[in-house]
Amino acid sequence: MVQTALKSVYAFKSGHRGMKDLLGSKGANLSEMVQLGLPVPPGFILTTAVCNQYLSREQRLSDRLMAEVNEALRLVEHDLGRVYGDSENPLLLSVRSGAKISMPGMMETVLNLGLNEETLGGLIRQFDNEWFAYDTYRRFVQMFGSVVLGVKKEYFDDLFSHQKAHWGIAEDAQPSVSMMRQLVNAYKEVILDRTGQPFPDSPQEQLRLAIEAVFRSWQTPRAIAYRNHQKIDHALGTAAIVQAMVFGNLGTDSATGVAFTRNPANGDKDLYGEYLMNAQGEDVVAGVRTPEKLSALAVEMPRIYQELSEVAYRLEQHYRDVQDMEFTVERGRLFVLQTRTGKRTVQAAVKIAVDMVEEGLLTREEALLRIDANQLSQLFVPAFNQAEKGKAKHAGRLLAVGLNASPGAATGKLVFDPEEAKQCAAQGEAVILCRVETCPDDIHGILAAQGILTSRGGNTSHASVVARGLGKPCVAGCEACQVDLRAETLTVQGKIFSKGALISIDGTTGEVYEGGLGAETPSHNPGLDVLLSWADQLRRLAVRANADTPSDALKALEMGAEGIGLCRTEHMFMGEERLPVVRQLILARTSGERCQALSQLLPMQRQDFITLLQIMSGKPVTIRLLDPPLHEFLPNREEVQTELLALKQADPYQLAYQEKQLVLRKIDELREVNPMMGFRGCRLGLVYPEIYEMQVRAIFEAACQVLAQGGIVRLEIMIPLVGFASELKQIQQQLDAVAQRVMRERQCGLDYCFGTMIEVPRAALVADELAQCARFFSFGTNDLTQLTLGFSRDDSEGRFLARYLEKDILPNNPFETLDIDGVGRLMTMARDLGRQARPDLKLGLCGEHGGEAQSVQFADRIRLDYVSCSALRIPVARVAAAQAVILGPPEEVGVRSRLFPQVGT
Amino acid sequence: MVQTALKSVYAFKSGHRGMKDLLGSKGANLSEMVQLGLPVPPGFILTTAVCNQYLSREQRLSDRLMAEVNEALRLVEHDLGRVYGDSENPLLLSVRSGAKISMPGMMETVLNLGLNEETLGGLIRQFDNEWFAYDTYRRFVQMFGSVVLGVKKEYFDDLFSHQKAHWGIAEDAQPSVSMMRQLVNAYKEVILDRTGQPFPDSPQEQLRLAIEAVFRSWQTPRAIAYRNHQKIDHALGTAAIVQAMVFGNLGTDSATGVAFTRNPANGDKDLYGEYLMNAQGEDVVAGVRTPEKLSALAVEMPRIYQELSEVAYRLEQHYRDVQDMEFTVERGRLFVLQTRTGKRTVQAAVKIAVDMVEEGLLTREEALLRIDANQLSQLFVPAFNQAEKGKAKHAGRLLAVGLNASPGAATGKLVFDPEEAKQCAAQGEAVILCRVETCPDDIHGILAAQGILTSRGGNTSHASVVARGLGKPCVAGCEACQVDLRAETLTVQGKIFSKGALISIDGTTGEVYEGGLGAETPSHNPGLDVLLSWADQLRRLAVRANADTPSDALKALEMGAEGIGLCRTEHMFMGEERLPVVRQLILARTSGERCQALSQLLPMQRQDFITLLQIMSGKPVTIRLLDPPLHEFLPNREEVQTELLALKQADPYQLAYQEKQLVLRKIDELREVNPMMGFRGCRLGLVYPEIYEMQVRAIFEAACQVLAQGGIVRLEIMIPLVGFASELKQIQQQLDAVAQRVMRERQCGLDYCFGTMIEVPRAALVADELAQCARFFSFGTNDLTQLTLGFSRDDSEGRFLARYLEKDILPNNPFETLDIDGVGRLMTMARDLGRQARPDLKLGLCGEHGGEAQSVQFADRIRLDYVSCSALRIPVARVAAAQAVILGPPEEVGVRSRLFPQVGT
Repeated sequence: MVQTALKSVYAFKSGHRGMKDLLGSKGANLSEMVQLGLPVPPGFILTTAVCNQYLSREQRLSDRLMAEVNEALRLVEHDLGRVYGDSENPLLLSVRSGAKISMPGMMETVLNLGLNEETLGGLIRQFDNEWFAYDTYRRFVQMFGSVVLGVKKEYFDDLFSHQKAHWGIAEDAQPSVSMMRQLVNAYKEVILDRTGQPFPDSPQEQLRLAIEAVFRSWQTPRAIAYRNHQKIDHALGTAAIVQAMVFGNLGTDSATGVAFTRNPANGDKDLYGEYLMNAQGEDVVAGVRTPEKLSALAVEMPRIYQELSEVAYRLEQHYRDVQDMEFTVERGRLFVLQTRTGKRTVQAAVKIAVDMVEEGLLTREEALLRIDANQLSQLFVPAFNQAEKGKAKHAGRLLAVGLNASPGAATGKLVFDPEEAKQCAAQGEAVILCRVETCPDDIHGILAAQGILTSRGGNTSHASVVARGLGKPCVAGCEACQVDLRAETLTVQGKIFSKGALISIDGTTGEVYEGGLGAETPSHNPGLDVLLSWADQLRRLAVRANADTPSDALKALEMGAEGIGLCRTEHMFMGEERLPVVRQLILARTSGERCQALSQLLPMQRQDFITLLQIMSGKPVTIRLLDPPLHEFLPNREEVQTELLALKQADPYQLAYQEKQLVLRKIDELREVNPMMGFRGCRLGLVYPEIYEMQVRAIFEAACQVLAQGGIVRLEIMIPLVGFASELKQIQQQLDAVAQRVMRERQCGLDYCFGTMIEVPRAALVADELAQCARFFSFGTNDLTQLTLGFSRDDSEGRFLARYLEKDILPNNPFETLDIDGVGRLMTMARDLGRQARPDLKLGLCGEHGGEAQSVQFADRIRLDYVSCSALRIPVARVAAAQAVILGPPEEVGVRSRLFPQVGT
Repeated sequence: MVQTALKSVYAFKSGHRGMKDLLGSKGANLSEMVQLGLPVPPGFILTTAVCNQYLSREQRLSDRLMAEVNEALRLVEHDLGRVYGDSENPLLLSVRSGAKISMPGMMETVLNLGLNEETLGGLIRQFDNEWFAYDTYRRFVQMFGSVVLGVKKEYFDDLFSHQKAHWGIAEDAQPSVSMMRQLVNAYKEVILDRTGQPFPDSPQEQLRLAIEAVFRSWQTPRAIAYRNHQKIDHALGTAAIVQAMVFGNLGTDSATGVAFTRNPANGDKDLYGEYLMNAQGEDVVAGVRTPEKLSALAVEMPRIYQELSEVAYRLEQHYRDVQDMEFTVERGRLFVLQTRTGKRTVQAAVKIAVDMVEEGLLTREEALLRIDANQLSQLFVPAFNQAEKGKAKHAGRLLAVGLNASPGAATGKLVFDPEEAKQCAAQGEAVILCRVETCPDDIHGILAAQGILTSRGGNTSHASVVARGLGKPCVAGCEACQVDLRAETLTVQGKIFSKGALISIDGTTGEVYEGGLGAETPSHNPGLDVLLSWADQLRRLAVRANADTPSDALKALEMGAEGIGLCRTEHMFMGEERLPVVRQLILARTSGERCQALSQLLPMQRQDFITLLQIMSGKPVTIRLLDPPLHEFLPNREEVQTELLALKQADPYQLAYQEKQLVLRKIDELREVNPMMGFRGCRLGLVYPEIYEMQVRAIFEAACQVLAQGGIVRLEIMIPLVGFASELKQIQQQLDAVAQRVMRERQCGLDYCFGTMIEVPRAALVADELAQCARFFSFGTNDLTQLTLGFSRDDSEGRFLARYLEKDILPNNPFETLDIDGVGRLMTMARDLGRQARPDLKLGLCGEHGGEAQSVQFADRIRLDYVSCSALRIPVARVAAAQAVILGPPEEVGVRSRLFPQVGT
């Protein structure tokens, strides 16, 4: 076996950072620091192989292994000039876990090993501090008792509280030395009582038991659950790190703290962190005292500060990344206890990456790979101040968590009526519009509000879709909230909020807070422009925007869009002055009535397109014809019914009553069991050809006009929900005729083409047939995911999907990160069939996945031409597309060998 | 060119039946009869090539062609001893269309060509019958005027009516010779008036114009639409058949009629048909007089009858199939005018096929191919008497046509309340249960009723699914019917039917009739058993049944099922005494409450399975675990709301009120936007593991008990709605543990395996991963079709699907006939991936397509192991499976080369 040839125990000085498999991440970094000559308390590491051996076969660590441990211990004793278990000059030890992949808080640590009645005396003499020594002894017995011997922590805590009461000392006052002596004895009695064994006084026994406990903590249910969740291999095992204790709580010349080599909040190149004078590491974590900023250390302990700065510089240069260090100052001597890559905000990540390239530490490619592209969109939406949010949570002001339907933070007065929202906004008041669900009738209220809160509906509900389109914060489907529209109250957690109450919603997280919260709009990040320019030089994939309105288009251009990949014309039907006309269209009884309504819509749509095409001046604009089912444009059924009742009581023969009845009948007629798979998309276009004909006329009239005014136009007309080549063929023939007619009328020639969405699985299966008509495909991965997985997005997110993620049935929410194994396979197939039939077929992706990094990288891997996403996500796509190129050539072997088995090995 | 080498005109005697491409079907058959020496009026055929040439290039038929025509005409004149255009002994001609594929009624015919003032005299003398000659002349001018010269038929009809009134003769009385002379002149004036040209008196000109008109009729809009619909190639063209006229209206020694070589209604080997003495063929069609049965001819004209019988025998022996002949007796001389394959009922088809094998006319394989397998299921359901139905339609009693949701015919009193339906049935009354939609609460009413009528819902609505399961006639989604449950009325076509009114529904056609109609249950067809036994010897595909109850299973065995391919356990949850327990289960707030409800269901389910397994004794039984969303088991929301209101008024603090409120809340909680893609199938099984665990326990306890009693058990447990291997793995692990536990408890070993439905497109895409767990796949083609096409069955059938079929966007309803190009491709892929991972993977199909012939043949082509369908469709599947084998080896090149392009050419 290979393992038997390896050593079981490594002194820090014989390891290095490349040995994470064997020594764990923490251990490897400690070794590396020792190699660099940095001041690390000496120690050694029992390898992950020892752990696995122990867990699989042994009841206790072998004597042979303990002999190796003792050998390593001798070196530590020699280094520090203290001896483990010695009653005169005792060495104390810590034993910590340290896996290859960090599992923060999941495994065990034991501190202050080596204490017993005899070595206690040595410790008192060593530091000439009796109180410190007893406090350390107390901490040790308690920690060892709970972690190693398995006595519940409550027993010790209860005892301590009880004794304090008995002694009559206040909760936060310190007990005296004699009290602590009593306490230690009482602790030991508890241990004897609970375990039937006396507390082990032998330092050797303590060490063996502690190492075993650390190894065993790899197997606790919470550690297993964590690894399952994080997809960490259970076979890795943890290392155990045995290290000499150093003490930051020996007086005013001692301290302990954490330090970042750069500011993790904003990326500034300053040593950043916190420390506590005269304290142990656990005190910093526990938050008993408020720590000082590290800048204070420069005044208090200038030499130490200087030394720490040098360590920081060397570590950052060495690791070529921001380091997060733990340090302790023991009586004026600095020790570094740990170093690891520093976590940072996205603002900081961008600045640091760019700065490090300028400093020559990183290449541009490395810098780009350092960015979590998905976080970049956070740079553009307002967010609540984190500290204020934390305080609000502490104060119990977090009311509920709904779906994070549209990112951003907003505070305002509760309003339940869209009309009132509009009026309040007109008077300069910030309001949050709260509804059970929203519908097209509410659009003026949505536009006026700072944010939207609904108690029902999923990520594709009306509120969610509209809010995302408008870039307005929205928390949707917040089922803990009971909304009573008649009483105009919101009831949550037993509290009742009336109209006018101040609330705050965080659309980025789905949280709803009582009262106001300070929001910050991230300041312009100049580093980002630099980073994006590097990404643009590298990436192959074009990035377009999903934009429906002129303001969307302007925003998209600002974010670097190279065109519009999805203009949803239905959003143009939703305008306040248009909805009545659209309803006229739907309620039309004859083709003539339908045409009359359409002729009213035509000039409106034409003007939309003129503005849009002017803004995009020459960049490609992909316009999708009407897609949603018609009932989405009709008012809410229950409201109509209520109105109807009132009208009937007034006078059942009046025209208004009869008209309203017609509306109700139409709502019922159009009601669908599964609207997602119903009468929408090109199915509408084929049954009511007038609608698409009007839209195409509006588009081409607009394009001709822009062209006549000297503009440039690149039009791509997209047919939604196609599943059969015959659908596409019929529609395209009919619409091409309209296009030709308009161009003849206006005597102009346009650069245009027709294409199709690929969003019905069948479309992917017959992509070769579709490509005979379509000049481009745009993968509508939202619907394609719904249908391929059979997951209704509205119904699954609040229900089984959460459980699926918890239970690790799914690795990700497939509506956020593309399901590469399923949907991705279908896309690859569609690409192959499509390009086979039409080699120059243009391929894009316009679902929300177009703004998600992993999905964008997949789009590059399968050689799509572009992705299209909402404006705020364009930077995500640009960086992710560059990362895809940096990460190397496409590897499709996995997919290919499955789809085309005969071709594989 | 090949065409120029071919003759343009073929005398009957120079053609034969193999020349349908060139001579059309009718012409080829006429030629064949002449070859056989049968008494056919002489004639000749202008080929389809002439037609195509005329239509593409010419304004008129060339003189050269007309010379060829005249040459052929000479032979006819010689044969018959009459001369075309001769004033003494004139020959009259007919010109008919005749395409390769019959297009009944779509194209034109012109009769009695060759008449003018001169030849009229000859005709009078020829038959010594002035009235006959004038009547013939009148008919000719009118027909030529409308068909050839394009004068609308109404002009002639109006003139005739007007003249009759003027003459003062009754509508049905015959005009005199002088009146007809006036009429002919008046017709000629109308023609001059409308066309500006005099009526062509030249027989040569008449012939040319008539041939041109017949050719042109290939291009009429209705003919083009028909070919589009029937997928007939427009390039085929029609032949024109020029034939000597013979007359059945020359007195009591003349007659005309149609004859089948065997009885087309029941298949009896008797000459069968109808005739009219002294009449022309068009009189038989027009139904002016009631024709006589052919048996009467044996008495009236025994010699002719004998001659006709001999012709029939020779034709049938020659064509080896039932022939449908037209004949005319002209003054004691028999002429056969046409022969074609006789259409027949399915009862007759079966008997004829079997008889012909016994007679040595056909092989068994040929006999099987003669059957339209899809029609076989009609042999088992009651149907209304066709004649009565026809009369009812004439009488305006057809009220509406809804969806043909479950086949069969039923008559009964209208009842709107399920409870009342039960009471009426208990008193022996036949009732039709009429609802807006049905829900599980109505089950006792559905069971009691003769048939179900609903105004809403599609083919997968509750009523449809349950009725099909019960084999009960159902017309669903009949939107023309307004159902008022409160008033207990059904309003349709402005008529109001109250409770107790007699109505009839035809679930085979979707028709709803006023009043009662006589229904016939088809008698046992002994031929079918023979035919099925031949099919069983040939077929490769096993045929199983979809059966949920013991009575289903018995029926299935009777129909020849080789196992159960789909036992839907949810139907076991719907029983009257079970539904309350199921609701308890759904309303449970804790896992404990859930388990309590489940423990009540367990013994019920166990008993279901015991009976089922006993009945199937050793045949494989595939049991699908709970599939539908839970809300399907809850009562109707509106009803609950009404009840709630009543309870609240009574006393809002009573327990019943609060419980009902809980129900309403649960209904709202479980309400889904797209239930088809929601929280159902294995998603339920994963979130509430107790449910599947109970089901598996019930199954295995039942199986162990049957085994202990000496029975044989072959169990296949099927997990529904799987899309991810992780789903299957988790469920299977968990359920396998239950199975093992039960077997240990009962100390028995069972033959069992787990498998999965393939009904979510993703499942097909990752079939290799699924096959690592699943021992079998069953293609759930209903849901697979819905998701692959994005067609909600409930929403599409009533809406765009009908339009899609009309507009030829789809060739078939994909829920009836499998979409081979789309869904079929996905299935082929799943098969390849699945068998790659597990070569002995068993593959089945259990959607409704399992009982549709074309789909069954596809299942054989892609080498599935079995299909499963409802009991009544089992004969369809058995025959279709045999047909697939007879039709030859699988040809998958089309599919394969598309799915695996690299492998193709």
